Amino acid sequence: MSGLFITFEGGDGSGKSTQVALLTNWLLAEGHSVEHSREPGGTDLGVELREIILHRRGYIAPRAEALLYAADRAHNIATRVRPAIERGEIVIQDRYLDSSVAYQGAGRVLDGAEIRSLSLWAAEDLIPDLTVLLDLDVAAGRGRLDESRDKYDRLEAEQQDFHERVRQGYLDLAAAEPDRFLVLDATDTIETLAAAIRSRVVSLLT
Amino acid sequence: MSGLFITFEGGDGSGKSTQVALLTNWLLAEGHSVEHSREPGGTDLGVELREIILHRRGYIAPRAEALLYAADRAHNIATRVRPAIERGEIVIQDRYLDSSVAYQGAGRVLDGAEIRSLSLWAAEDLIPDLTVLLDLDVAAGRGRLDESRDKYDRLEAEQQDFHERVRQGYLDLAAAEPDRFLVLDATDTIETLAAAIRSRVVSLLT
Repeated sequence: MSGLFITFEGGDGSGKSTQVALLTNWLLAEGHSVEHSREPGGTDLGVELREIILHRRGYIAPRAEALLYAADRAHNIATRVRPAIERGEIVIQDRYLDSSVAYQGAGRVLDGAEIRSLSLWAAEDLIPDLTVLLDLDVAAGRGRLDESRDKYDRLEAEQQDFHERVRQGYLDLAAAEPDRFLVLDATDTIETLAAAIRSRVVSLLT
Repeated sequence: MSGLFITFEGGDGSGKSTQVALLTNWLLAEGHSVEHSREPGGTDLGVELREIILHRRGYIAPRAEALLYAADRAHNIATRVRPAIERGEIVIQDRYLDSSVAYQGAGRVLDGAEIRSLSLWAAEDLIPDLTVLLDLDVAAGRGRLDESRDKYDRLEAEQQDFHERVRQGYLDLAAAEPDRFLVLDATDTIETLAAAIRSRVVSLLT
């Protein structure tokens, strides 16, 4: 018996955390074993790496940044996610390899195919069963963030054109793998989005 | 005008630090601009990563370890080594990609070819002009370390068969690239080794 691996993707302010929490609570109420994870920072080692990636002062070379995300991923998948899936649990994760391709590939102007193969090497080829992309206009996302943040982390603080490339990178990934992706308009209401996500997850469980 | 990139490799206790210092001082006395570096830990970011790699308590997944070394390498090469070479300087570095292949590949039983291509991606294909391998019997290396260390770091503390695989991994790399490698018997006297290294470096400078 094998579990499910569901990832959430989208720009800052797109509502990933809210939907991850709603789906997790619903699945728990339905009697499923659910493991919640995130990248970066899903493990103790990952928390240290997340601090470096998101909050360190000073320049980090683009390839070094991509490799730090991949290191976090390798440890998270090997020590938490894969064991949980093999126990038959449902793993719900906030950000995964598509984030790396969208942010480090499209955003940082590294080669997207290279970033993808780096991530897959790190994760020993683990592909999610479902990836929910909460798509949001960049200006709208910034507006939401401005309301919720005292200050931005290192990636949130990038310029608008960076975030535009990230959004387009996500949409390209979804178009290339329509069966894996569920693309939703993040301006829909929280309950509309939650219902659409539940409906898709139910179809995977039966 | 382009400088030189010289790396030193070998097991723990093989005398790399001594020979790096002697070569550096000799080149400086000859009037060359010399940059000294090391991996892991050649940059401020690298020092933080070195602390995690070598001294962190608890398990680190093998691919995560390999990726942390690669992240350190990417930042060191992009921000220190390549700029110095492009200024025409001589960069002398303690450990580089051959360490990753020998330790993470041969030692950790990951795929050596994958580790090599990961390193080369991190370093944007920078290959040393010369790599000095100080080859030493594992038991002799342990004896030297026992005299100099209060306690071992995470890699030094591995078992003898790990270090035997590392040594053989190094020798295989040298056999595959005889033009790049200078393999020396680390039980020779310090001055004999230093003279052999100087002689080879002089041939590269003329």
